[in-house]
Amino acid sequence: MDTPQRPLYAPGALAPLLRPRSIAIVGASDRPGSLGARALANLAGYEGAVFPVSERLSEIGGRRCYPRLSALPEAPDCVVLAIPAAAIETVLAECAAAGARAAVVFASGYAELQTAEGLAAQSALSRIAREADLRLVGPNTTGFANLVTGAHCGFAEFPHGYRPSRGTIAIVSQSGAMGLGLSQAAEHGVSISHVLTAGNSADVDVADFLAALAVEPEVRAVALAFEGVASPERLEEAARAVLAAGKPVAAIKLGRSAAGAAAARWHTASNTGDAARWSDLFARCGIVEVTDLARLIETAAFLAKSGDLPRPTAAPAIAILSSSGGMGILAADAAARHGIATPQPSDGTARALAAHLPAFGSPRNPCDATAQATSNPESLVRCADALLADPRFDALVLPWGKAWVSPCFDALSEVAASHGKPLCLVWMSQWLEGPGAAEAERLEQVSVFRSLDGCMAALRARAVRRH
Amino acid sequence: MDTPQRPLYAPGALAPLLRPRSIAIVGASDRPGSLGARALANLAGYEGAVFPVSERLSEIGGRRCYPRLSALPEAPDCVVLAIPAAAIETVLAECAAAGARAAVVFASGYAELQTAEGLAAQSALSRIAREADLRLVGPNTTGFANLVTGAHCGFAEFPHGYRPSRGTIAIVSQSGAMGLGLSQAAEHGVSISHVLTAGNSADVDVADFLAALAVEPEVRAVALAFEGVASPERLEEAARAVLAAGKPVAAIKLGRSAAGAAAARWHTASNTGDAARWSDLFARCGIVEVTDLARLIETAAFLAKSGDLPRPTAAPAIAILSSSGGMGILAADAAARHGIATPQPSDGTARALAAHLPAFGSPRNPCDATAQATSNPESLVRCADALLADPRFDALVLPWGKAWVSPCFDALSEVAASHGKPLCLVWMSQWLEGPGAAEAERLEQVSVFRSLDGCMAALRARAVRRH
Repeated sequence: MDTPQRPLYAPGALAPLLRPRSIAIVGASDRPGSLGARALANLAGYEGAVFPVSERLSEIGGRRCYPRLSALPEAPDCVVLAIPAAAIETVLAECAAAGARAAVVFASGYAELQTAEGLAAQSALSRIAREADLRLVGPNTTGFANLVTGAHCGFAEFPHGYRPSRGTIAIVSQSGAMGLGLSQAAEHGVSISHVLTAGNSADVDVADFLAALAVEPEVRAVALAFEGVASPERLEEAARAVLAAGKPVAAIKLGRSAAGAAAARWHTASNTGDAARWSDLFARCGIVEVTDLARLIETAAFLAKSGDLPRPTAAPAIAILSSSGGMGILAADAAARHGIATPQPSDGTARALAAHLPAFGSPRNPCDATAQATSNPESLVRCADALLADPRFDALVLPWGKAWVSPCFDALSEVAASHGKPLCLVWMSQWLEGPGAAEAERLEQVSVFRSLDGCMAALRARAVRRH
Repeated sequence: MDTPQRPLYAPGALAPLLRPRSIAIVGASDRPGSLGARALANLAGYEGAVFPVSERLSEIGGRRCYPRLSALPEAPDCVVLAIPAAAIETVLAECAAAGARAAVVFASGYAELQTAEGLAAQSALSRIAREADLRLVGPNTTGFANLVTGAHCGFAEFPHGYRPSRGTIAIVSQSGAMGLGLSQAAEHGVSISHVLTAGNSADVDVADFLAALAVEPEVRAVALAFEGVASPERLEEAARAVLAAGKPVAAIKLGRSAAGAAAARWHTASNTGDAARWSDLFARCGIVEVTDLARLIETAAFLAKSGDLPRPTAAPAIAILSSSGGMGILAADAAARHGIATPQPSDGTARALAAHLPAFGSPRNPCDATAQATSNPESLVRCADALLADPRFDALVLPWGKAWVSPCFDALSEVAASHGKPLCLVWMSQWLEGPGAAEAERLEQVSVFRSLDGCMAALRARAVRRH
C-alpha cells in the first residue's frame, strides 16, 4: 500500500519498533503453529519485558498472561497484534489508550484486496496510528526482527537463537516471505542484524525502515527489496541518510517489467513506477542495483566488508588467483563480460609469484597456483600477498574450486586487510554450503560469492557508484 | 593439449575406461594423502578386480599387492599410473606389454609447460598409446569416474559411496578441478552418473568422452566444460552423436574473452578458438550454451528431467505460481528479461484457481497462492494442476520462498508428469541447501534452480534449441 506524502520519520521515532523496552502480544497462544504461539516463541532470546495478552489463558510456558492491554503493569513499547482482522481496529485503539508507542498487525484483508472496504479498513488503522503518534507496521505483514537485541515482532521463522557477528547487513523488504528467505543466509555464515518487513505500509514503510538504519550502530550495509513507494523522493532521502552514515545499500526493485508491475498492483496495491527512473535514482544516490534476488545478499555482504576500503573511481582492474587453471580462465572471461580489466602483473610481482609456484604454475594474471595450493596452502597466501601488493590491482578474485576448510583462510583475510583491498572468494563448488563455506563467510576481510558473474558485477558496481 | 586430427573413437572403444573389468594401480600406497592411496581408496565401491602394484608393499588394507604389472594374474583392463613423471614413459610401455587396454596418467610436466621437452614427452606417451591401441587419459589429469559402477580411476574426492538415482547427468570437463567442483552437486541431491576429466588429452579428449556417453544407458543429459579442442568438427560430431541418442547437452566454453583465451594457452596449451564461432556451433547442433559456471549443473539437470517432454518451438509462455506475491513479481520480471511471455490464464483456469485461493490471493498469472499455501499445501497442488492444464502455458515456474520439506512435493511432481510439462522450482531461500533442497532435487519431474535468471535462461534455451 502506498504511504501518504509525509516526511520520513526521524530515525529515533522508530526506536519503539527497533529497540523496544517491552513487547506485548495480543492473541498470545499455546496452540502450536498459531501466529500467537509463533510470535511468542520468537521472543525467546529477547531481554526486555514480554507481556502475553490472552482472554483464555493465565500463563503460557511459564510466562504470566494478562487478560487485556489495560491490565498490563506498564505501558508497552510495542504491541504485536496476532488476532483476526475483525478485532484489529478495536485493539489498535486499545493500544493507543494503553500508551503503546508502536504496534504490528499481521492480519490480511486490507488495501491488498483493492476493494473500497479494504481501503477504508486500512485508512482507519492509519488514522488511529497517526492520532496517537503510534508507529504501525502492517497490516498484511509477517513482522520484523532486530537480531542484535532479539526483539523479533513477527511470526516468521528467522533463524532461532541466532546472533549476528561482524560485517553485518540489515535486510529491508516490503515482502515478508522475501525477508524470511533472504534472512536464511544466516545459515551459511552471513551476519544479519535486522530483518525489517513492511507489508501494506499503512504507516511505517520501507523508506522509514531504511532511514532508521542510519543510527543503528551494528549495521554496516543494507539489502533492500521493494515493489513501490508512493514517493520516490522519500526513498531517495532515506537512502541518502543511510549512505551518508557510511552504510552502502544494495537494492532490488520488484515490478520492473510490465508483467511484474501489473502483478504488483494486485499484490500490495503498489504503483511500482517506471523502472528506468528507479535505476536513475539508484545511480544518482549511489545505491547498487541488483536484478537477480539470488545476488542481493552476497552483494550487500560484500559492500559491508569492503565499505571502509578505498574505492577505484573508474572501472576496476583485478588480479585472479586460483588453484585451477580452468577456473582462472573462467574468471578472466567473467571479468571481461563486466568491463573489468585483468592486466598482467609488474615484473617484480611476477618474480615474487614465480618464487612461490611450481614450474607448471603460471606467474601471470590469472595466476595458476595449481593443485599444489591444496597441499601447500601457504603458497596461495604468498601469491595473494604479492598480487595485492601490486598497485596495478584494485582487488583480488579467488575462484575456490572445492568445498573444504583451508588452513589458509585466516591468513588470506589478514593479507587482504594489510593491503586494504577487497578479496573475493568465489565459491565454485556445487556443494553450495559444504565444508568451508560458512568459515569463509565469517572472515572479516573476505567476501564470498556463489558465482563469478555476481562477483564481477559487485566489483564493478562498487567502483563506479557515487558516494 | 590439442588432439591430433583423427576420427572420434567409436563409443565402444572407451569401454575399458568407462566399464573396465579390472583396474590396476601402479604406485598404490598406504601413505595417507598420497595420490596412490587416494586412488586406491576411491575404488572402495568398485565391483571389478583391483590390482594394486607396489615395489615396496605386499598388501594394502587387505588387498594383495603385485610388484610389477607383468606379475598380475591377468591383463588389466585399465591401469592408473600414480607415479612421478620420470617413470611414466617406461611404465606406460609396460602397460602396453601387459595387454592393458587403457591407462590414466596423473603426472604433470608435459605439454602444459609449453617447452620443447614437455611437448616431446607428451608426444612419446601419445605414440605408445597409439601403437598399442591403448586408450590414454591425461597426462596432467585428476582422473575420471563412473559413479554407476564405482569405477573411479582418479585421485579427486568425488562424493564417496555415492550412487546416482534417476534423471542422471554426466559431467565432461577438460579441467579436473572443475569436474570435482561440479560433481559436488551430488551433495544436494543432483544425480550424477559420470565425471570424465581429460587433462592434457594426449589421446582421449573431451570430444571422445562426450561421444562415448551416447551409449551409456544411465545418462540422460550432459554437462560439458572445455577450453579448446584441436578440431571443432570432432566436438560437433560428438555432440551430434550424443544428441541423436536423445541426451541434451549444456556446455560452457572457457576462454571466450581475449584475457581468458590467453590464460588458456598458458594452462593447457589449448587454442580456444573464436568465441562467436563456438556459439554458432552450439546453436547449430542444439547444445545449450551457459556462460556462468554456477548455472551449468542446474541447466543440465533440467534438460535431463525435461528431455522427453514436448518442447515449444518458439519462445515459451509460462505460468508462475508462488506463495509470496513479491516472488511472483520477481519471476515475472525475470521472464520478461529473457523474452518469455507470462499471459493471463483462460477464464476457466482463473475460475479453477479462484476456487483454491483465499480472497486475498490472486487467480491470475503470476498466481499468488499467499502464505496459506504453507498451512494448506494441497491448495498449491490444485493451483499447479489448473495452470499446467491450461494450453496457454508451456511450463510452470514455482518460486520457493523458504527452506522446508513440503508435504506437497510428491504431488507437485505427479501433477507435472500428468501434464507432460516442466515444473521449475526456483529455490529463493538463501539457505541454499536447507531442508527440502535435496528432497526437491530428487523429484523426478521437478527441476530445481537457484536463481530466477538461471531458470528463465534454461526455459528459453530449451524451447529454441534445435534437435
